[in-house]
Amino acid sequence: MYRKKIKVLDCTIRDGGLINNHDFDHRFVREVYKAISESCVDYIELGYKNSDKIFSPEEYGLWKFTRDEDILKVIDGIESNTKITVMADVGRCNFDEIKEKSESPVDMIRTATYVKDIDKAIQMANHFHEKGYETTINIMAISRDSGSFELEEGLHQIEEESHVKVVYIVDSFGNLYQETTENLVKQFKSIIKKSEVGFHGHNHRQLAFGNTIEAIIHNANYLDATVFGIGRAAGNCPLELLIGFLKNPKFNISPIFDLISKELIPLRKKIEWGYLIPYAISGMMNEHPKAAMALRNSDKKDNYREFYESLLTTELE
Amino acid sequence: MYRKKIKVLDCTIRDGGLINNHDFDHRFVREVYKAISESCVDYIELGYKNSDKIFSPEEYGLWKFTRDEDILKVIDGIESNTKITVMADVGRCNFDEIKEKSESPVDMIRTATYVKDIDKAIQMANHFHEKGYETTINIMAISRDSGSFELEEGLHQIEEESHVKVVYIVDSFGNLYQETTENLVKQFKSIIKKSEVGFHGHNHRQLAFGNTIEAIIHNANYLDATVFGIGRAAGNCPLELLIGFLKNPKFNISPIFDLISKELIPLRKKIEWGYLIPYAISGMMNEHPKAAMALRNSDKKDNYREFYESLLTTELE
Repeated sequence: MYRKKIKVLDCTIRDGGLINNHDFDHRFVREVYKAISESCVDYIELGYKNSDKIFSPEEYGLWKFTRDEDILKVIDGIESNTKITVMADVGRCNFDEIKEKSESPVDMIRTATYVKDIDKAIQMANHFHEKGYETTINIMAISRDSGSFELEEGLHQIEEESHVKVVYIVDSFGNLYQETTENLVKQFKSIIKKSEVGFHGHNHRQLAFGNTIEAIIHNANYLDATVFGIGRAAGNCPLELLIGFLKNPKFNISPIFDLISKELIPLRKKIEWGYLIPYAISGMMNEHPKAAMALRNSDKKDNYREFYESLLTTELE
Repeated sequence: MYRKKIKVLDCTIRDGGLINNHDFDHRFVREVYKAISESCVDYIELGYKNSDKIFSPEEYGLWKFTRDEDILKVIDGIESNTKITVMADVGRCNFDEIKEKSESPVDMIRTATYVKDIDKAIQMANHFHEKGYETTINIMAISRDSGSFELEEGLHQIEEESHVKVVYIVDSFGNLYQETTENLVKQFKSIIKKSEVGFHGHNHRQLAFGNTIEAIIHNANYLDATVFGIGRAAGNCPLELLIGFLKNPKFNISPIFDLISKELIPLRKKIEWGYLIPYAISGMMNEHPKAAMALRNSDKKDNYREFYESLLTTELE
C-alpha cells in the first residue's frame, strides 16, 4: 500500500506513558526519538501537555507535562525530519501556558476529547492554531458514540468551526472491527472535507493493525502506531507491522527492530501490555479497560471467568 | 455476527502439537475436550493421523498418530455434541490403516495439502469419504499460490472429483490481510459450489482474527481457531475472540476462560507461541516460519535486525 498522503505518527512515549505514569527517562526517550527519526516516520508524540497546576509533578513523570526544555534535551544533536507532537486533553491543559509555535520545538498539538466535549476541543484547537501549531482533534471512546446524533453534529461543528489538519477516530476500548471501522471512516469522510481523517486503534481484540489497514483502505491518511505495540492495556497498532505493510520506500524498518531488541524487550519484563484475556473481555464488552487493568494489578489477575461474569452482572444492573 | 451455517473448529491440540512434538498427556487433552464440549464448539481436532511406519512413536508424542484408543481415553464419560476431527498430511499418512467410520470415534478427516499435491489430496479425501467420514481438503501456504493457474485448476478438480464437505484456505505464513483474504474467499466460492469454504489463519502479523472476520463477511462458514491462540510460531486465531464475536447463542465462552486460566497460562510459561518479531518478519516476507522458529531456539533469539537483513539477502540470491 503506497499512497503519498499517508502519514504515520509514532505515539510510543505518549500512549506508553499511560502504563508507567509517563515516567520514561531522557535516555530512553532519546533512543526512541533517534530510531523513529532514522525510520523516517512522519511524526513522533512525546507526551501529554497537562498543566502542573492540575497534576502534581511529584506524582507523575516528565511526559505528563512534556515541557519544551525536556523535548530539547532528548532531540539535541539528532538529525531528524520527524515532526514533534504533544497531546492535550480537554479540561486538563491550561492552554494559556503554551508558548507560541515560533518559540517551541513542538510542531503539532493534538486535542483529545470525548464526543460530549467537542465544543471545548474546538476552542482549544483553535487556540493552538492561532499560536501557529498544526492541530488535530482526536475523538476518543468512539465505539460508544458510533452512529449517534451527537457525533454527527460534532463532526459538522469541527468542519465548520475549526482549522484542524486531522480528525482522528480513536478506538479507546478496542471494540471496533472491520465493518464498524469502515462505517466510521466513511461517516467522518462524508462530513470532514477540509481536514484529513486519522485512525488510532487499540489492540484488545488483536484488531488494532487490521483496523488500521481497514482505515487505510477507506482513505484515512493519518495513522497512529507504537513500537512493539506498547500502550495502555492491550496496547496499540505495532509500528513495525504498519511500516512493514506500507510500501512507501522512504520508510526504514531496521532501526525499529533494533529499538525493540534493545529497549522494548527489557521494558516489557518490567511493565505489562499486550494481548491478555481481561483486555479481550473489555474489548468484547465495549468497556473502558480500567476494570481489567485493576484486575491485572490484583491477586486475581488470571481469574478470567469470574471477571467476565462480574462484568455481565454489572451490565445488567 | 450470527449465521446458522457457521461452524467453529477448535484445533488447539492439533496445531498446538506443532510446538511440543504433539506430546500432550491424556489429562491435558481431556481438559481441552471437556471445555470445548461445554462451550458447544462444533468440532475439535485432536491431532495428526501420521503413519507410525513413517514417523517413529519414540520420537513423537501421541497426537502425531492420534490412535482411536487414545481418543477413546480422553473422551470417555464426557457429555459432548462436539464432533471429532483428525488431520492427515498428503504423503505422511498410510491411509489404508484408517478404520471404517463405523468402528472409529472420529467424525471428520481433514486432508492437508500444498497446491502442487491437490491430486493426491483428492485421492486421499475420496478414500476417507468411502470409509464413511466427513472430509475436507485444506490448502496450505496459500499466500504463495494466490492467483496462480495451479490453484485455479486445483479448485476445479476438487469441485469435480471430490466429495469434501469443506475446502479450507490455510494462511500458513501469516501473510494474508483483508484484501487478499477477500480475494481468496471470493475465488474459492466462485469455483467451489458443492462444498463450504473454510478459513484457517496464522497470527504472524496479528491478523488471524481479523482475517477470520473478513472470511466470515465473504461467506466462509468453517472457521478454525485455538484456545489462547496456541499454535506454530505466532499461533492461530484465538478461539475466545472468535466465540466472543459470533452471536450464535449456543456458544458458551466461560469454560474457555477457565481453560485458559488453568491450563494455557501455565503451559505458555513452558512453551512459546504468540506475537514475536521474528514471526512478524516471516509474515511480512511471505516465508515459512521455520527460520524464525530456529532463531527463537538459538542464542540470537532477539537479534531481529540481523535476522531481517539475513532474510533480505537470501531473497536476493
